[in-house]
Amino acid sequence: MKKVTFGVVGIGMMGKMHLTNLVRNPYAEMLAVCARTESKVKAVQEEFHIPLGYTNVADMVANPDIDAIVVATGADAHKEACLAACHANKHVFCEKPLAKTLEDCAEIEQAAAENTGKFFTVGFMRRFDPSYADAKQKIRAGVIGTPIAFKGVSLDPASVLPGHLEGVKKGIYVPWFIEMGSHDADLARWFLEGEPVESYATGDAYVCTELADYNDYDNGFSLTKFDNNTTAFIQVGRTATCSHVESEIVGTKGTIRVNSVPRKNYVSSFTEAGYVEECQESFLARWRDAFEAEMNDFVDCVRTGHKPEATAHDGTMGLKFCLQLHQAYLDGKK
Amino acid sequence: MKKVTFGVVGIGMMGKMHLTNLVRNPYAEMLAVCARTESKVKAVQEEFHIPLGYTNVADMVANPDIDAIVVATGADAHKEACLAACHANKHVFCEKPLAKTLEDCAEIEQAAAENTGKFFTVGFMRRFDPSYADAKQKIRAGVIGTPIAFKGVSLDPASVLPGHLEGVKKGIYVPWFIEMGSHDADLARWFLEGEPVESYATGDAYVCTELADYNDYDNGFSLTKFDNNTTAFIQVGRTATCSHVESEIVGTKGTIRVNSVPRKNYVSSFTEAGYVEECQESFLARWRDAFEAEMNDFVDCVRTGHKPEATAHDGTMGLKFCLQLHQAYLDGKK
Amino acid sequence: MKKVTFGVVGIGMMGKMHLTNLVRNPYAEMLAVCARTESKVKAVQEEFHIPLGYTNVADMVANPDIDAIVVATGADAHKEACLAACHANKHVFCEKPLAKTLEDCAEIEQAAAENTGKFFTVGFMRRFDPSYADAKQKIRAGVIGTPIAFKGVSLDPASVLPGHLEGVKKGIYVPWFIEMGSHDADLARWFLEGEPVESYATGDAYVCTELADYNDYDNGFSLTKFDNNTTAFIQVGRTATCSHVESEIVGTKGTIRVNSVPRKNYVSSFTEAGYVEECQESFLARWRDAFEAEMNDFVDCVRTGHKPEATAHDGTMGLKFCLQLHQAYLDGKK
Amino acid sequence: MKKVTFGVVGIGMMGKMHLTNLVRNPYAEMLAVCARTESKVKAVQEEFHIPLGYTNVADMVANPDIDAIVVATGADAHKEACLAACHANKHVFCEKPLAKTLEDCAEIEQAAAENTGKFFTVGFMRRFDPSYADAKQKIRAGVIGTPIAFKGVSLDPASVLPGHLEGVKKGIYVPWFIEMGSHDADLARWFLEGEPVESYATGDAYVCTELADYNDYDNGFSLTKFDNNTTAFIQVGRTATCSHVESEIVGTKGTIRVNSVPRKNYVSSFTEAGYVEECQESFLARWRDAFEAEMNDFVDCVRTGHKPEATAHDGTMGLKFCLQLHQAYLDGKK
Repeated sequence: MKKVTFGVVGIGMMGKMHLTNLVRNPYAEMLAVCARTESKVKAVQEEFHIPLGYTNVADMVANPDIDAIVVATGADAHKEACLAACHANKHVFCEKPLAKTLEDCAEIEQAAAENTGKFFTVGFMRRFDPSYADAKQKIRAGVIGTPIAFKGVSLDPASVLPGHLEGVKKGIYVPWFIEMGSHDADLARWFLEGEPVESYATGDAYVCTELADYNDYDNGFSLTKFDNNTTAFIQVGRTATCSHVESEIVGTKGTIRVNSVPRKNYVSSFTEAGYVEECQESFLARWRDAFEAEMNDFVDCVRTGHKPEATAHDGTMGLKFCLQLHQAYLDGKK
Repeated sequence: MKKVTFGVVGIGMMGKMHLTNLVRNPYAEMLAVCARTESKVKAVQEEFHIPLGYTNVADMVANPDIDAIVVATGADAHKEACLAACHANKHVFCEKPLAKTLEDCAEIEQAAAENTGKFFTVGFMRRFDPSYADAKQKIRAGVIGTPIAFKGVSLDPASVLPGHLEGVKKGIYVPWFIEMGSHDADLARWFLEGEPVESYATGDAYVCTELADYNDYDNGFSLTKFDNNTTAFIQVGRTATCSHVESEIVGTKGTIRVNSVPRKNYVSSFTEAGYVEECQESFLARWRDAFEAEMNDFVDCVRTGHKPEATAHDGTMGLKFCLQLHQAYLDGKK
Repeated sequence: MKKVTFGVVGIGMMGKMHLTNLVRNPYAEMLAVCARTESKVKAVQEEFHIPLGYTNVADMVANPDIDAIVVATGADAHKEACLAACHANKHVFCEKPLAKTLEDCAEIEQAAAENTGKFFTVGFMRRFDPSYADAKQKIRAGVIGTPIAFKGVSLDPASVLPGHLEGVKKGIYVPWFIEMGSHDADLARWFLEGEPVESYATGDAYVCTELADYNDYDNGFSLTKFDNNTTAFIQVGRTATCSHVESEIVGTKGTIRVNSVPRKNYVSSFTEAGYVEECQESFLARWRDAFEAEMNDFVDCVRTGHKPEATAHDGTMGLKFCLQLHQAYLDGKK
Repeated sequence: MKKVTFGVVGIGMMGKMHLTNLVRNPYAEMLAVCARTESKVKAVQEEFHIPLGYTNVADMVANPDIDAIVVATGADAHKEACLAACHANKHVFCEKPLAKTLEDCAEIEQAAAENTGKFFTVGFMRRFDPSYADAKQKIRAGVIGTPIAFKGVSLDPASVLPGHLEGVKKGIYVPWFIEMGSHDADLARWFLEGEPVESYATGDAYVCTELADYNDYDNGFSLTKFDNNTTAFIQVGRTATCSHVESEIVGTKGTIRVNSVPRKNYVSSFTEAGYVEECQESFLARWRDAFEAEMNDFVDCVRTGHKPEATAHDGTMGLKFCLQLHQAYLDGKK
């Protein structure tokens, strides 16, 4: 069996997670990593037993032994890596968001379209989460009739707020409807099978008031009309008591919820406080299975020729939706 | 102990429920009922052992032995009964909605204001539901910090849809954001302690398409900005699998939910379908305790001089909010 | 309509609750109360507007205007009141436990059997709780196949322990497998439709060690084989964090649970502690509907001639089961 | 970094799972596998890239390059492999049950004791399940006071019954209190920190009556007194609607539950049936994380010299407890 050979660009938290999952996959071979700082590249090579290291994307994609590239850099560097990988005729997996501007997205989409015979997919890992996959399957099976609304809530715990603020100040983070909202934007499009037309949004920097100086906020609420007469309610926040991502799909004959109570594990307690279930603390723990399934799916697609579901176009349209939500928020603040 | 003496106008489902609760209250005395049809009045008098029967509100309120009037007629007749009762210097409990137009509300509010020394309250029974009362108390105690958003979902089961349609055709029912939304409108104002400024709404007559001919719908979604920088998401529907009224109050330090899973009772089953809990079928069963607590509170207010919480002004502002939601829906359909 | 006329013996917590429910019932008429202390009788008569008061059971049952007697005295006085009521040819409702000894039970059973044309029922109110009634109905409908085991847990909160200890010292309370276990004993017999054969029990006075001096305990665990090859696990305790009565019926094709999470109401919170639901604090709040339904059923039986389900024999067999559990506990301690 | 080198004996479902987890562990190196059938050994070597293959345990343990042996054969072959590995001075991980007789357990325990400087652990993987580990940690932290009872329920879905019966007929499976009960036996000892003294048990072959011919059953219920005055209720079954392993630890100040509702994932639905959560179907899916954590822990122990928690003695005492439960069941049937 010929394994699919991989090169990963970017070795931060996301890059390492993806290469860990590739190392675990019996059909994949981690051949190369690439990052700007040589010492870091060497350290990762050693830790994960990866034969090749690069400090330049162009060099890595030039290696004909590499079948597929995983782009896991910061969003600012996505375009360069994606274009290089497409031009070198590699399969590409790019972390979300595809890019920070619609113009960059368009360039990537075009490069992907011209990269004949190769796949390009964007890392909307929630679609691969066993629960979301199950929800989608149930909906396809008609369990709730026709979907008429998607309600998505994505909350980070307040504990991450100081770090978020730092990131916002440094320009690393885009506003919250774009950063966090990107996941719900994709889920809404995926479940409703339509495109957003018009949005209305509210919210504010209630707790971390300094965010307002950056046109950012710690809680945002939005309602969006879709072109197929459906609705998306998307709420994002970063002042919650836990990491809480909850979704609901309202259909004409029933309703499906995902993670309505974000239980940390199977433990519940009866104490003086009452009946207590501890909640999810960490985004990585919640989505570990989803990230692994997503990468396994990409390996399978390359191996079997099955087309990945989330395309570069989904990356573009997801960003477009997020920008619309953020603009609606800004319009509401006027 | 002098009991509070009551006259009830209207002996339909709501009127009978209120008088049943008054009969149970040891501090209240059901003295009189009033309705247009004499035979029905007599039947109710006999069934509930009520000494006096009237077919005319003016006659009933003229009886000096009656301390308080409960107005439980159709909404169209609220104004006449409320004005008569206020002019006769009675305490008044009026079912929601206070009236169908803001003009009628204004007249009632003025009459209530001029009815010196007497109380006027509107039947927003959800405030008296043990769970909502508990939620409000927890919020007052600071459990979730400062409320920043209210999310209210009020759904009727699809089984009631044919009857609803009939009511809409006959002009008995007002559109759903006004009819059903009135409860969430009041809860939003109660929990957020602000007034609605601007609304955006979507939805459609997805299942019962005939509703569209009456500018009505079976599912509506709305987002409203409040004057204190808070937000209300209100969803109303009548295509659900059960009677489902769920609310969430998002605060800066926590979140409270009411009835997230609308369990019918304490039973759960493990069957082939999985883990199953049957859901609430009936609006009356869900709110029985709330209706009784609401009437008991009114009796207590009259007895002790404690002012009822929900005023005629709440009735007016609640209707105003609902009309705004419905208008936003119509605007969105253009 | 001729109402059913009632006399209530005993005006403590249980007596008052029953007469309150009778006052609410439109088909019942509270005619008389009876208790030893005249002043207390008078006070209750006044509070509930009851025309007749007695300080002697014999006098009350001699009144031909009374159709039915509710016995709500302490268990020690049950026999006298039941025998008198039976001999006077009244319908009888007796609080559980029927009596404190099997000998007394036998006398009562015989008197009830000889009281031709009249009903005798014992107050196993859990059978009338909407959730237990629903569970029984589901089982009858075959939802879980054939029941093979009953698991009953009945726990009082630790807060009541000091009062319990006082009651034990004064000889008012019987040991916990008999006092609290009586409910689960009845449920086990009701759901399993068999009789207990052999029991094994463990436990101790873990928290309130003083209870051991009275052959009592604060936590007891038992397993009982039934004559139809089914099993009952019964756990009783009084050191819990809330009032927690939970039952499970295991069938050949499924399982039904009642009150697995003893939620106080419909409120849930997300706070620093996690997902929290407050639990039931009070036995009276939990069973309010059951007590009312039980008395309403008795009124209906007398009115319509429908035989009450729980008979004097159930009272006897329930006590016998409890005594067996307690003896098993004592045997295990040797 | 020197990796810990592993040889795995047995390449059935359990052996493959363990070696998959070892392959994933960056501190472990899968050096050798051993099984009777050479072709199967070769296939596994190829699939998992394992350099060495053996068809004889003695040969494998003679290899001085191997640090640790994982015994994952059928229970009948445990003793031979364990003794060989101990005599060859290897660290040993043995699947549960340690052996099928107390005599074999004793021999293994002795060999383990004489295997100076090396660890011997038994695969009680539930202890490593994140939820059980969390429960244990909470109990150690005093969240529920002192444990006084363990309640364990371990149920297989009825769908596995035909296969079970086959296994019983062929003598592969031991009776259910021993086979399935072994997990709860260990949990009870682990949580209660005592040893079983006396057991009482009931149950029957209710659904698969043929099991009775083999002194086996499809549902068993047991109550066991421990030497530290605590209690274990253990229920095993194989007629459930799902794979359901639930535990409860009752303490003097609170109660902890694990997996009370065996949710398959985070999805819940509102359909005509009510509120539905699908349940766990597969034992492997439920315990995947536990098996991985267990093997990771063993690797860590060997690397760091930290002693594994579950010892050969735990294996012996667990079996002893199970045999006692099964005997109590047989005694009850007489």
